[in-house]
Formats: sequence, structure tokens, C-alpha cells
Amino acid sequence: MTRTDGIRVAGSTVILTLRPSALGTPALALPLVRRTREPFADRWALPGGWIAPDESPIDTAARTLAETTGLTPSYLEQLYAFGAVDRSPTRVISIVYWALLRQDEVLAQSAAHRASGRAPENVEWFDVDALPELAFDHADIIEYALWRLRSKVGYSRVAHGFLPSEFTLADLREAYEAILGRQLDPANFRRQVEATGNLIPTDRFRTGSHRPARLYRDNTDVELAARGPLGPEETSIR
Amino acid sequence: MTRTDGIRVAGSTVILTLRPSALGTPALALPLVRRTREPFADRWALPGGWIAPDESPIDTAARTLAETTGLTPSYLEQLYAFGAVDRSPTRVISIVYWALLRQDEVLAQSAAHRASGRAPENVEWFDVDALPELAFDHADIIEYALWRLRSKVGYSRVAHGFLPSEFTLADLREAYEAILGRQLDPANFRRQVEATGNLIPTDRFRTGSHRPARLYRDNTDVELAARGPLGPEETSIR
Repeated sequence: MTRTDGIRVAGSTVILTLRPSALGTPALALPLVRRTREPFADRWALPGGWIAPDESPIDTAARTLAETTGLTPSYLEQLYAFGAVDRSPTRVISIVYWALLRQDEVLAQSAAHRASGRAPENVEWFDVDALPELAFDHADIIEYALWRLRSKVGYSRVAHGFLPSEFTLADLREAYEAILGRQLDPANFRRQVEATGNLIPTDRFRTGSHRPARLYRDNTDVELAARGPLGPEETSIR
Repeated sequence: MTRTDGIRVAGSTVILTLRPSALGTPALALPLVRRTREPFADRWALPGGWIAPDESPIDTAARTLAETTGLTPSYLEQLYAFGAVDRSPTRVISIVYWALLRQDEVLAQSAAHRASGRAPENVEWFDVDALPELAFDHADIIEYALWRLRSKVGYSRVAHGFLPSEFTLADLREAYEAILGRQLDPANFRRQVEATGNLIPTDRFRTGSHRPARLYRDNTDVELAARGPLGPEETSIR
């Protein structure tokens, strides 16, 4: 009857942000937790933990993310349920959620978590191009999340999840470049995004060391495919 | 430590096909299994079962689908892991897979299953517009699968999963109409699909009671987004 005895279920999160790299351009980064126990003691892992009997998978993901990193994204999207038999020394199925956070949200929420005195010591952010040795199949999970992100920029406004409400075309192009891992031609990029009708030019400009650049905002009349297909039970996130 | 004791994990499948309706146009249909046990005895449910300790979720889904229906799709895509606390009288997380099958595949595989003598009596196909009373949250799961299918026809060639290798534009339009649940203008539809470059006209025509209609085939140079993001462990399907 209970053939699944012995299978345990965890909820985990891949939280991606764009942060300034040493080169000045933005780079994708995510938080990891250094494990304090076997298996894979001292290796780095995605934030996560066991699903409690009275807790939905997305609530486990949100709770363990908040406990470790202090991050409280306004939504989490289910990425995938990873269930290969040999992915852990014991049988574990991990339901993984993901979200994109702006760097200013990350900084504010992380600072509040440290100020609370409840922030653990063993959390660090890593550029996705310079990941440490990871526990379990978490390197594969991150690779899959990055593949999904790259696939989605082709048909959705997912890159906007990293940007503030007003941004320059250069901001948007650099977000795409960080996601795709390659340079884009500025003139072609401008033509393509203007053709989508997804951007509304404002009458404001960013000034600074370069010539003033017009600020744009999202056309919120266009459905935000970036949030993707949230599942029917996903209303229970805190 | 084992906070997930008491959570059981199942694998289930949503298998969609297009079959001729009473009106002559194709309609979406899927196989259901009538439950013989409590909870929800006598209600209809998606094919599925408990994940065995040595079995990956996709293998459970493929095995239970073959046992009940005889269907052996060449791929299954993970649809979603459904984990709401109250979705079953006991705590059950269901990892649901889906696939599109052509009607000729369904007929051949079903016939072979019946001929084997191992086909259970309690399996039937239903049009998605005329579903019976369903067990658990399976009505929500089917609704979600149909929503995903309708979303995908906008940016992928998912409808081609229902069609043979050569088909007329009317075949393709009727598949879209069945998925979207509304009529499409034939001239507009032709313009739109021809603009995508995804179709290659052949020099063959279908003849019959109407005027001859040109047969088309898929342009296999274009990546088949219809298969969607198969996860990294999805190589273990039999």
C-alpha cells in the first residue's frame, strides 16, 4: 500500500539576481548555503529543507529561503520536481522553485535579516560563472534554471524581473547579455524591443557621466508572461 | 529529522489526443481510470500510482500509464508537482507528466493492449468538454494541463504533436481550434502559419470529396519547442 515509504520530499529555491561584476557589467548571482552535516558536509547547496506534514511545497520553499537568506520574494514559480533515484544517498525528491529578484530588493532584505540577529553565518552569494563545489545534483538544478531563464527571454519579458520600474535600454540590454552570456548589438537590440510594443518611453532621462539616456517602463497592458504558468495551488505562499 | 514521514508521492499522467467528434471536427480527449477503492471509489481519476523506492517519478508515470491504458508515448514532459496539503484525505504529492498522442497511435496501442488480455476494464476515454466527476483535485490538474496547452500553441509548435507527418492547413487549423476552443479565420490562419517558416509545402495533395488540399510537413530545422523543457533526469523513461 504505502510503497513510497522511505521517500522523503524537500522544497528548495533557486533565487537569481543581477549584480554588478568586477567589470562593471551586471552578472547573474544566487545565494547558497554551506552544509553543516553529512551527506556533503561543507559543500554548498540551494536553500531548502524537508516539507512538513502540514506545509505545501511552495510554503516550505518560501520558509526555508526566508530563514536562511531573509529573502521574501513576492512570488515563487515551480521550476521542476527532481526525483532521480540516485540523486542523493537516501531517496529524496526535491520540488524546486525559482524567482528573480532585483539587486536593491536583495540588499534591503539581506540587511534586515542581518539586523534581526537571526541570519545564519553559512550563506553566501556566488556569481553563476564561479560556483563552488555543490552538494547532491544542485549543479544540475542550477544549470537547468539558467537554461530555462535563457529559453524564456526569447518569448517573455522575464529579464524585466531584474530591473526597477524605470530603466534605460542599455540596462535592459545588459540584463539580456548577462542572461544569454553574449554581447548584443545595441542598435539591433533597440529595434527589436521597440517592435514588441512592450516598452513605454517616459519623458525622463538618466544623466551622469554619459550622455543622457531615456528611461522606459513596462507596458503593463501586455500580459506578463515572465511570471510563467503558476500552478493552481500556488496561492498559499505567505 | 524525517519531517516528511507520512507524505507519500505519486506519479500520474495527462495524455491528450484529438479524436473526431460527433460534429466531424476533432475534439480533445484523454483517458481516465475508474477508481475501485476509497477514497473516491467509483470516481474517475488520472492514470497513476505510488512511486516505488527504486523508481524515478517519470518511470512511475510511464509504467502506470502502460499498465492501465497500454499507451507508451515516446516522451513524457513534467507538467507540475501538485502538493497542496488538502488535495487528498491523506498527504499525497503527485508529480504529473503529460504528452500529446496522435489518434492513430492511441488506437494501435489500445488495440494491442486489449489483445494482450492485460487491459483493465475500468479505463475509458472522455472528451475534455464532457468529463465525469473526478477524484481528488484531478479536475484542477486537467484544467491546468489544458491551460498550458493553450498557452503553448501561442509560441510553439505543440499542436503538431497531434498530427501525422504530412497534413493539410485545414488539419492544422482544426487542431488549433480544438485546443483554443474557438473558430479561426482560415485565410488569417494560413497567412500566420506561412509567415512562421515552420511549414514546408510538399508536392502532394489530399484528394476526396473536397477540392484537393496541399499536404505540408514540419520544418525540422526549427527547434521543436513543443517538447518543452525536459528536465535533466528525464532520460530514464523506458
